[in-house]
Amino acid sequence: MALKNDAALRERGNRVIPGGMYGHLSVHKHVPKNYPQYFSRAEGCRLWDVDGNEYIDFLCAFGPMIAGYGNPRIRAAADAQRDQMDTGGGPAPVMIDLAEHMVHQVSHADWALFGKNGNDATTVCNMVARAQNGKRKILVGSHAYHGAQPWCNHMSPGIPAEEQVHYPTFVYNDVESLTAAAEAVAGDLAGILVSTFKHDVGYPGELVDPAFARAVRQICDAEDAALIVDDVRGGLRLTLDASWTAHGVQVDLSGWGKAMGNGEPIAAILGSERYRDAAASIFATGSFWFQAAPMSAALETLQLLEELDAPKRMRAVGQLLRDGLEDQAKRHGHALQQSGPAEMPNLMFEDDDRQRSKGLSFCEHALNNGVYLNPYHNLFMSVAHTERDIDQALEATNRAFQALT
Amino acid sequence: MALKNDAALRERGNRVIPGGMYGHLSVHKHVPKNYPQYFSRAEGCRLWDVDGNEYIDFLCAFGPMIAGYGNPRIRAAADAQRDQMDTGGGPAPVMIDLAEHMVHQVSHADWALFGKNGNDATTVCNMVARAQNGKRKILVGSHAYHGAQPWCNHMSPGIPAEEQVHYPTFVYNDVESLTAAAEAVAGDLAGILVSTFKHDVGYPGELVDPAFARAVRQICDAEDAALIVDDVRGGLRLTLDASWTAHGVQVDLSGWGKAMGNGEPIAAILGSERYRDAAASIFATGSFWFQAAPMSAALETLQLLEELDAPKRMRAVGQLLRDGLEDQAKRHGHALQQSGPAEMPNLMFEDDDRQRSKGLSFCEHALNNGVYLNPYHNLFMSVAHTERDIDQALEATNRAFQALT
Repeated sequence: MALKNDAALRERGNRVIPGGMYGHLSVHKHVPKNYPQYFSRAEGCRLWDVDGNEYIDFLCAFGPMIAGYGNPRIRAAADAQRDQMDTGGGPAPVMIDLAEHMVHQVSHADWALFGKNGNDATTVCNMVARAQNGKRKILVGSHAYHGAQPWCNHMSPGIPAEEQVHYPTFVYNDVESLTAAAEAVAGDLAGILVSTFKHDVGYPGELVDPAFARAVRQICDAEDAALIVDDVRGGLRLTLDASWTAHGVQVDLSGWGKAMGNGEPIAAILGSERYRDAAASIFATGSFWFQAAPMSAALETLQLLEELDAPKRMRAVGQLLRDGLEDQAKRHGHALQQSGPAEMPNLMFEDDDRQRSKGLSFCEHALNNGVYLNPYHNLFMSVAHTERDIDQALEATNRAFQALT
Repeated sequence: MALKNDAALRERGNRVIPGGMYGHLSVHKHVPKNYPQYFSRAEGCRLWDVDGNEYIDFLCAFGPMIAGYGNPRIRAAADAQRDQMDTGGGPAPVMIDLAEHMVHQVSHADWALFGKNGNDATTVCNMVARAQNGKRKILVGSHAYHGAQPWCNHMSPGIPAEEQVHYPTFVYNDVESLTAAAEAVAGDLAGILVSTFKHDVGYPGELVDPAFARAVRQICDAEDAALIVDDVRGGLRLTLDASWTAHGVQVDLSGWGKAMGNGEPIAAILGSERYRDAAASIFATGSFWFQAAPMSAALETLQLLEELDAPKRMRAVGQLLRDGLEDQAKRHGHALQQSGPAEMPNLMFEDDDRQRSKGLSFCEHALNNGVYLNPYHNLFMSVAHTERDIDQALEATNRAFQALT
């Protein structure tokens, strides 16, 4: 598999981009050396790198793609709005349509605000919680990712410690650690920010324990704190409602992003009636937050996902992949560690070393056989993945297992 | 002028958006009551509200529009990229083309990073500065706007004081106050963040005093601190280079956004060689930061602005508007206070009251005559504003002056 064009672009990139590439799509770290950095085409669940190699993609751009790259129906909706107005003097009427749709779709929601980055959503949720109760502390999971803004970024130099002092941590699914963290800031607890499920990078996925979810709710009620669910990464794949609602736990605020516009840049903050005045009192905005085309794309995406009963479909193809991989691993004598929900699965090896040599090697062979996986981060299913795509992917992974020493 | 459809949308909006609308495009505050909230169409320098009223727009979506709404050449560039891939598994080659173009265009720049919100750019500039010199304090202008993230948001409840402790202020163009602010944090000064010119909301615009710019540079050199220019709002209109370079002062880092993609969502961080390793060391990213279509739009926008010698054109039509308004104000006996650069002018009245009754009334009459202005915020010119548009706008403002009591 030649990556000649990719190498030439990297060479050029090294001159004008610090380190050659940055952020979560950088292939400098965490993935095998044969991973292409640049892509020329994307369609359905397929990616083509700049050297013309085709891949069945199970990363979905790290989540944003949920209905297929270039989905014609969603593209048409966005284009129709673009023909009239995109970034304009104010919002287009579609902002109201989208807000109404989300308030109808998500059971805890009585109102909506929109932003760009998923991190805009988590930041605004915190602001609303604090504006409501006048307190400061937001508890967060100890290895959870809520974005790369200074308050939640633990992977970067250049951030003063003071900007992170109000975010004490707890261990996800551990009621004891949660209770202790809440007690330590009693009287100053503004909110508890939780992920859809435990999807910490580099760790196996872990669904939320309903008893833990209920404990979070109880503490929030007792302390007059907001229960905030970060559904930016996990939203719309496990359920179309806020993710914790399925566990019988209603949340106060939820943050959305990534998949809601099928790759068009949009994020949302949803909240319950109780937090409406606080949400009206804050100032949050951005130059492109009222851009209309991504709102049209989001409305079309959400309607499409509802029509298709999308979470069920993604779970089904995800389970097909999982069962196939499990079978192959056993036949080839490898202890595959599959974790997390089938629609956002993690693939690791139980007996792997600290460098994840086996995981890296498996992903490298899978890539050489036309399947784009990741050894550290959860994968994402989409409604563009058909049973036939899974069959084809499994043929490739079978060859990858064969090549794995 | 009937705003029936607008009223109906506001009524619906009140139910699903806290307070009915939010952010800088909200017409609840600061503008006359006849301002429409929702728009159905935008083309060139014209806006149409949802009731079909047409306006010559001098706000340009608060900056993003610089080459005309729906500019066909820019739209075609974005669409061509969208046909291949937008948000994908990695960046498209256009990221390198855009980085190379900006490094060539902006004289202090040796490298580029891209984000979404303008605030992403200012935040990342701070991170790079601090990662470079290991210090914490970033000096900012006392009423400057650098975004609405917690560290720089002074208009909102819901933000703990600790997240803003490292941003002491100085008075723009006041060397004494700057020197005092720098001395107060001697040894801990990471950077000085300045706007293109003094464009604080609600105040007259004030060009940077070259002596002040040189003092900023001197302090940064003496203290090993980064000179960061926030060209998010002012960039590309006064000059295509970093704005302070024209004053003989080279900056270390510059933040860009708003107009660079003519409304497509993109921001950029540019830096000099000295800050390259620091920029490579930080972690900054977002779900849509590598979206390819806005990068294509930005590349096309920047090429177009260069071909047209855009700043000169915008200055010329801005001056035409300014001269016409000055003449009209004199004839009608009003003391118009015009400030800031002609390409980003402020319109106020010298003898206005604290509520800006005269400014509000003038803008109300201008709107009723088809011209979209703002009584508090600087306006923006674009290359889509022709002499004919200015003539037509001046006919409208003449009627507005006539109606002004």
